[in-house]
Amino acid sequence: MTKPAALRFFKFDVSQQVFYQSEYSFCIVNLKPITPHHVLVIPKRHIEFLYQLNKDEKIDFYDTIHTMYRFIRYLTGANGTNLAIQDGIISGQSVPHVHAHIIPRFEKGNLGDGVYKLLKGQHDSSTSAEAGPDAPKERRERSMEEMISETEYLTTQLQKWLKRSDEEKDKQFVDIPDLDESSTEAK
Amino acid sequence: MTKPAALRFFKFDVSQQVFYQSEYSFCIVNLKPITPHHVLVIPKRHIEFLYQLNKDEKIDFYDTIHTMYRFIRYLTGANGTNLAIQDGIISGQSVPHVHAHIIPRFEKGNLGDGVYKLLKGQHDSSTSAEAGPDAPKERRERSMEEMISETEYLTTQLQKWLKRSDEEKDKQFVDIPDLDESSTEAK
Repeated sequence: MTKPAALRFFKFDVSQQVFYQSEYSFCIVNLKPITPHHVLVIPKRHIEFLYQLNKDEKIDFYDTIHTMYRFIRYLTGANGTNLAIQDGIISGQSVPHVHAHIIPRFEKGNLGDGVYKLLKGQHDSSTSAEAGPDAPKERRERSMEEMISETEYLTTQLQKWLKRSDEEKDKQFVDIPDLDESSTEAK
Repeated sequence: MTKPAALRFFKFDVSQQVFYQSEYSFCIVNLKPITPHHVLVIPKRHIEFLYQLNKDEKIDFYDTIHTMYRFIRYLTGANGTNLAIQDGIISGQSVPHVHAHIIPRFEKGNLGDGVYKLLKGQHDSSTSAEAGPDAPKERRERSMEEMISETEYLTTQLQKWLKRSDEEKDKQFVDIPDLDESSTEAK
């Protein structure tokens, strides 16, 4: 048997950060996560723009995003999630290879719209006075050891989660806030 | 024939803003667009969270997002696009009904990460000193007349675009910047 090809995110070999792969996509842990278990979904083929996905890649990419969103939400007990694709440098894309961000969000130490500031292309370090899982003190580069440890954890947890029934897969979303209809508006 | 059911976005009847509908989803023009032709893709069934999409709705929703992204990008000649889903109030969702933002981005008068500030739940009006299609002076509420006019324009243009060959559908993306590999980093 030949060694499987390394999985590349643009020019970077991210094979050690991969916790899931489908036919045309893979998922990695993040060098600088905004919140714990902020992960990326990436097409295997190197393309810069989302419109370059072919039909099979497109179906697989979005399906993988949706599955990973459900898994991360379940695993973290997140109160909400941001899904973001920055398509093209001008939209904040920092690595010119299509990727989707899945960012679990937490009531405790909530970042508010700071999540988008942290998502910006430059990846400046930033600090927050608040504690809590949603507010990392700094968006710092992690060591490979830290990333491998998270990768192993997510791989194990994902295999358990995939065996659950479809109904059980979404059970752990417990913190739906009361909605005040009068405070909402069409946008 | 009975009158078709009104299309609702949470509690709002947005039927007059609909420029496309598929079996389980529809697309509307925005009350307060961040950039010209910033549109929303919405599941017909009222659900608050993305994980509540059933299998058919899920396929249809993401497929509609991808098609509309290609169309808006083509139509506007955008230099990039932001795709964003804010799942749950804590992630910035202002209307508690699943929706995806498609926000074309432009070099001229570029908003930078201000696009995310404008995406925030509160929808404050904000001003920009810059001119250009990417930097609206104010994120203001538009009149129904303005929205109907845009809806008619997008409906007509979409019908033309849908008749194009698949190859032609993505042709108008002309402004891909040169990439400097040394300036990128894994995230």
